[in-house]
Amino acid sequence: MKYEVNDPVRLTDDGKAILAIDQTLLPNHVAYIRLEKPQEMFDAIKTMQVRGAPCIGIFAGYAMFLQAKSLASIHTDKEHFYQDLHKFAKFLSTARPTVMNLPWALKRMERTAANNMRRSFDTIVEAMRREAVEIHEQNIRTCYAIANFGLTLINDGDSVMTYCNAGALATSRYGTGLGPLILGAQKGMDLHAYICETRPMLQGARLSAYELGNAGVKSTLICDNMAAVVMQQGWVKACFVGADRVAKNGDTANKIGTLGLAVLAKHYKIPFYVFCPSSTIDISCDDGSKIVMEVRDSDEIKREYFKSPVAPDAVDCFNPASDITDARLISAIITEDGINYPPYDFN
Amino acid sequence: MKYEVNDPVRLTDDGKAILAIDQTLLPNHVAYIRLEKPQEMFDAIKTMQVRGAPCIGIFAGYAMFLQAKSLASIHTDKEHFYQDLHKFAKFLSTARPTVMNLPWALKRMERTAANNMRRSFDTIVEAMRREAVEIHEQNIRTCYAIANFGLTLINDGDSVMTYCNAGALATSRYGTGLGPLILGAQKGMDLHAYICETRPMLQGARLSAYELGNAGVKSTLICDNMAAVVMQQGWVKACFVGADRVAKNGDTANKIGTLGLAVLAKHYKIPFYVFCPSSTIDISCDDGSKIVMEVRDSDEIKREYFKSPVAPDAVDCFNPASDITDARLISAIITEDGINYPPYDFN
Repeated sequence: MKYEVNDPVRLTDDGKAILAIDQTLLPNHVAYIRLEKPQEMFDAIKTMQVRGAPCIGIFAGYAMFLQAKSLASIHTDKEHFYQDLHKFAKFLSTARPTVMNLPWALKRMERTAANNMRRSFDTIVEAMRREAVEIHEQNIRTCYAIANFGLTLINDGDSVMTYCNAGALATSRYGTGLGPLILGAQKGMDLHAYICETRPMLQGARLSAYELGNAGVKSTLICDNMAAVVMQQGWVKACFVGADRVAKNGDTANKIGTLGLAVLAKHYKIPFYVFCPSSTIDISCDDGSKIVMEVRDSDEIKREYFKSPVAPDAVDCFNPASDITDARLISAIITEDGINYPPYDFN
Repeated sequence: MKYEVNDPVRLTDDGKAILAIDQTLLPNHVAYIRLEKPQEMFDAIKTMQVRGAPCIGIFAGYAMFLQAKSLASIHTDKEHFYQDLHKFAKFLSTARPTVMNLPWALKRMERTAANNMRRSFDTIVEAMRREAVEIHEQNIRTCYAIANFGLTLINDGDSVMTYCNAGALATSRYGTGLGPLILGAQKGMDLHAYICETRPMLQGARLSAYELGNAGVKSTLICDNMAAVVMQQGWVKACFVGADRVAKNGDTANKIGTLGLAVLAKHYKIPFYVFCPSSTIDISCDDGSKIVMEVRDSDEIKREYFKSPVAPDAVDCFNPASDITDARLISAIITEDGINYPPYDFN
């Protein structure tokens, strides 16, 4: 596999660590971090240096391979090896509880390890390396398929509203929600995006504006509270968003604010499309009420990016990382298998 | 008239300048600016050092008095005095075009000047001083009346969502949208506010959180894109917002994001209340389509409060200062005269 600059996560050439773009520093600095130890890997996901549901899945694949390699070098009996590998998977899965692709990739890697239980440590580790690379390559194929399906939903000259970052940085290559725009630009189409900045971590302003600019897609950045006026003026033909987890009935957990955008889109009769790899669909989850809301640190709202605090120290904050968008607000859910229209009943 | 600390705008004791809290520095610094020259006054409104529709009206009253005093000291003939006074009023009125209270106060001050045309310069100037003070005192009485009406719309124990800053800083004393909460706390009621931070200038985080904290109202700060999830969870009983300008039919121009909040509130069947002095109602304006949108500098989105830029230099921004909320999304408009329910037809 040949790595490209727009793979935000990859193995180092010596195969000993994960090399990842630190997404908290973009767009001002393009800096790579090298991650070897379990705690470093956990923190990279938790602090959103590595982010985007599919990208976290790719990361988890490589993390499991590296951990298996490290455990194989210290263990002599398989039982302890498998126990410790499982312990690591459980540990990593708690870094971002809403993100479906994290347990999905961890389970897939554990299954690969289990399938090779009778083989040598070297064989197990090599099988896991190949599986991690396959998760990565599959994601690239998947994103390309999603982008192609998405492109059938818009026309040359259209403007689309995007939320958070569902581009290559969140996945690899085309991305999910941004994929149709990037692919469309490559095909010479004249497309435009209204990018919602996406508070508190500003993934829209920092990452989507950066990626769409690099891809040659004309963009206009807005604050999240400006989405309604843009829709009211009739300036966008559709909303394109990604997903952290999609329930069997289509209820979709995604970056906080996705729900509000979907309500606005419904009010203004603008189609609202969710883009994700099928691995993001959790058929064991009946509906959104079963998904736990991740609530994050108040300082992301009050301090994180600011020169000085923007609120009194004493004020309480509520800082949910994601929300659940009711399936009835979603016009279609697009995966690599095609465009799914309501009523949703995934299996 | 006795000034209090929660009068954000007042005359200096020597009567030669306006003393105003610089609202761009709150909550980190409580600093006063002294404004004497026309350009300084214009800039204070334009840059939002002085803000809040009713507060801008009070400011404009004092500004006209000071300008009249200054013009009276250099002119000998009345014609040039009135011409220059009118020129100043026109100049100041362009600092924030959406805000109704600005032309309202300027016209009221010009009328006072005109009514005393045959009198001495001293008499004209003194009449204008009295009129400016009356605009200020009237606003205090008005806010108190609005707060009392607003309090009838909620119950002890309720939580309310607030937007931007419609408190004493935007007016004087009780404020408009925050008035019922502040008055309720004084009466010993147990009220709570979800404060939307209000991007890009963060008036909710910086000003409302500061004021409600001082007033002893329990508050929780959220980013604007978190409003939907708070409503979805059933955590708020009503939304309370202020207004920059209300058209005859009830369409309401207010801080950007008000429209989106009203759409969300309608979707979740939460009453959406607009609070304003009757001077904010523009009966010469049939509906919202006649109100010009103020579009502000991109740097407010990309740079203003941040340690380093949060978006690529090259990305376009759309930064409207206000939006128009359709009258059909508003449950009631509360002025000092009472609670107005739809259909609205002000006169």
